[in-house]
Amino acid sequence: MAEITEFDTIAAISTPIGEGAISIVRLSGDQAVAIANKVTRNIDLTKVASHTINYAHVIDPQTQQDIDEVMVSVMLAPKTFTREDIVEINTHGGIMATNSVLQTLLSNGARLAEPGEFTKRAFLNGRIDLTQAESVMDIIRAKTDKARQQALNQLDGSLAHLIRNLRQQILEVLAQVEVNIDYPEYDTEQMTINLLQEKAQQISQKITDLIKTASEGQILNHGLKTAIIGKPNVGKSSLLNALSHQQRAIVTDVAGTTRDVIEQMANINGIPLQLVDTAGIHATEDKVEQLGVDRSLQALDNADLVLMLLDGSRHLDDQDLKLLQLTQNKKRIIIINKMDLPQVLSRQQLTGEINKEQPIAISALGQQGIDQIEQQIEQLFFAGVPTSTNTAVVTNARQLGLLKQAQQALTDVQTGIQQQMPIDLVQIDMTNCWNLLGEITGESAPDELITELFSQFCLGK
Amino acid sequence: MAEITEFDTIAAISTPIGEGAISIVRLSGDQAVAIANKVTRNIDLTKVASHTINYAHVIDPQTQQDIDEVMVSVMLAPKTFTREDIVEINTHGGIMATNSVLQTLLSNGARLAEPGEFTKRAFLNGRIDLTQAESVMDIIRAKTDKARQQALNQLDGSLAHLIRNLRQQILEVLAQVEVNIDYPEYDTEQMTINLLQEKAQQISQKITDLIKTASEGQILNHGLKTAIIGKPNVGKSSLLNALSHQQRAIVTDVAGTTRDVIEQMANINGIPLQLVDTAGIHATEDKVEQLGVDRSLQALDNADLVLMLLDGSRHLDDQDLKLLQLTQNKKRIIIINKMDLPQVLSRQQLTGEINKEQPIAISALGQQGIDQIEQQIEQLFFAGVPTSTNTAVVTNARQLGLLKQAQQALTDVQTGIQQQMPIDLVQIDMTNCWNLLGEITGESAPDELITELFSQFCLGK
Repeated sequence: MAEITEFDTIAAISTPIGEGAISIVRLSGDQAVAIANKVTRNIDLTKVASHTINYAHVIDPQTQQDIDEVMVSVMLAPKTFTREDIVEINTHGGIMATNSVLQTLLSNGARLAEPGEFTKRAFLNGRIDLTQAESVMDIIRAKTDKARQQALNQLDGSLAHLIRNLRQQILEVLAQVEVNIDYPEYDTEQMTINLLQEKAQQISQKITDLIKTASEGQILNHGLKTAIIGKPNVGKSSLLNALSHQQRAIVTDVAGTTRDVIEQMANINGIPLQLVDTAGIHATEDKVEQLGVDRSLQALDNADLVLMLLDGSRHLDDQDLKLLQLTQNKKRIIIINKMDLPQVLSRQQLTGEINKEQPIAISALGQQGIDQIEQQIEQLFFAGVPTSTNTAVVTNARQLGLLKQAQQALTDVQTGIQQQMPIDLVQIDMTNCWNLLGEITGESAPDELITELFSQFCLGK
Repeated sequence: MAEITEFDTIAAISTPIGEGAISIVRLSGDQAVAIANKVTRNIDLTKVASHTINYAHVIDPQTQQDIDEVMVSVMLAPKTFTREDIVEINTHGGIMATNSVLQTLLSNGARLAEPGEFTKRAFLNGRIDLTQAESVMDIIRAKTDKARQQALNQLDGSLAHLIRNLRQQILEVLAQVEVNIDYPEYDTEQMTINLLQEKAQQISQKITDLIKTASEGQILNHGLKTAIIGKPNVGKSSLLNALSHQQRAIVTDVAGTTRDVIEQMANINGIPLQLVDTAGIHATEDKVEQLGVDRSLQALDNADLVLMLLDGSRHLDDQDLKLLQLTQNKKRIIIINKMDLPQVLSRQQLTGEINKEQPIAISALGQQGIDQIEQQIEQLFFAGVPTSTNTAVVTNARQLGLLKQAQQALTDVQTGIQQQMPIDLVQIDMTNCWNLLGEITGESAPDELITELFSQFCLGK
């Protein structure tokens, strides 16, 4: 994996498409400089030093017609993103100039890069592992600073480092077991068993610790699906607005949502909150509320968090009780809205209906108490998890799934020993664990996985 | 104008905002390197050579926390876009990383650049003139290759060069007139008058030639507003689709259009056609046609070109005749649709209704005859205009307006001479012409004009 493989030369637009001051068209591969040189005039790019920026004109070599006035960055292997020669052509922004430059490169020997192909080469050429590759996209897609920070740490390789360390330990155990099997004259069987058991336990514990970080990791990356639930006129839309319309809020239209399911993003102390409402959040309060409890329930299914809203100015009624019951097994925060009105809701009755939860009194309209909700969210999801920025964190379902499988393999090791299975069968489970951990970093990942993973990247990365 | 003025250091995101592989955050000003150096670690940017690309991490200097892993390009004055020191930081794309890097620069001594401020500095520092500055935005906004090509030529300064040449000639005349006025003992009055008259005529002719290019220039830049007109069921939508849905077509949603006025862009041999229909082009043929002739007429007002559609399978009727009459003073192309059906329309009757126009028979549905329409469009608007790529072309209303004023000043010179006005009054008109031409290149442009012009630029340019 660490040696450089020879690939063809690829090209793509690496900046977002649209009207902007500058676009970057990127080339990677051993023909990158030759192709760039062929389509530029007034400069010999094959003679310039690595990591220099050069003024040039892109031309059509057939017609000699100018395409654009550009700055060409030449970066020679191996100190580049892909470990191949890279040429970046900074064109005037806009669609025509950028496309024309790309087309010219494609007509002169470059192939259009697939999504994620530059990063894939960085991986295949051994510069980064799969978790670092994933972190590249996580940085790009980050919705809050905290999410960006987490991705940046992963790019530094903290997770990969930890995984590699665990694999190294497993390898040493396996080697030791091998020695013991090869020299059965010594009374080593019990030693082997003890070693396997001890290591399986130790590594399993470390994986458990890692898995604990997954919730934080994934929430930061993908957002916390949050449903605001409550009876009509309780103030769901007002709360949604209070949470999302603050200055620090990111309000986006999430692609693929229908008019019926509208999602808004809120940034709660760095945690991206994906506020889900199935009854049309943008509609007026009245319209939303007309749709009533039934629609609200649909939002429950996929929610990571429920904000259960009660009306402090009214008595608890059957609808409230039903919703409290329906959400009791969810991670939820009980919120009593309308604290600015005379309070009628019986706290005593409410205490009887909920467990040890501490309701938060707010005024959604008056923006009072919103901070407390935010603190509670942070505590619910991030309490006990070290938020130190240098620890390894599991950031996606792929990593989590493999860790769980690896842990299962270790459980199989321990069960096998308890059931006095032959050592070579136990050894298989240990090897399996080693392979599964290797899939996380890509050291033992099958080609299809790698293809699938990079196909989710954006073009030009 | 040619000497470098001292400005503060500005920063902006110079790539389009969105998810992309790379974003560029650009700094310009004499503190550019110092500020970039303050917010990066592991490198001393003040010591690197000009026009080099350097691997670095952007950090928050207060907390020492990493913000992003970046490539930093250092380009020292004067060989830069602004003629100031420029630092470009290539960040991971995406909104958070890009914004965080920008915010860090702004917190450490840079000021957020106004739209177009980098280009404005290039102008104020004497690297480019106003026509070249305008061409920068024209490249970015170009909708077709031809438009991009035209803008690129202007960026090379072909228009500015011609204008400066004319101004130089005027200056020489004015100097000569001055000499003749100072030494009235010689019988030079007639000489002076002859010289003024001759030069006014010569320069006026050159301006006339330039003005002739304005139509092409502006059409390439802004598109040709084209109305498709015809009675119900004549096939307007089909023609629109045939023109715009070809492979080379650019179909865009033009910002600010309402549901009722939908515009589509088509690329006709490099000419951007802005197809206007006031009755909802995206609706089905039936719906469009129901709205009938009345709505179609609204599209006529602003149209540069009318595509007048007739139905070959039906007789000319009152609606056709009315529309033919209404469009007779417009640049129009008469098109007879449905050539695939039995032809009923009387060509003889039609010839009586139109001038020397040659109708084009097409089948919009069958995509037949569309090429002929395209050729006709090119002939109508670009015939006689040299499309050589190295000639100066007037590309916007500002330039055209000033040229017309300059021409008027020359007419005033000639009229003044005919009316035997005092030479010093004639001289004022000649000086006026010199100033007006200077406004085109910016050599004599007032501050407000410059501010206004650059404010229309995009951020980061």
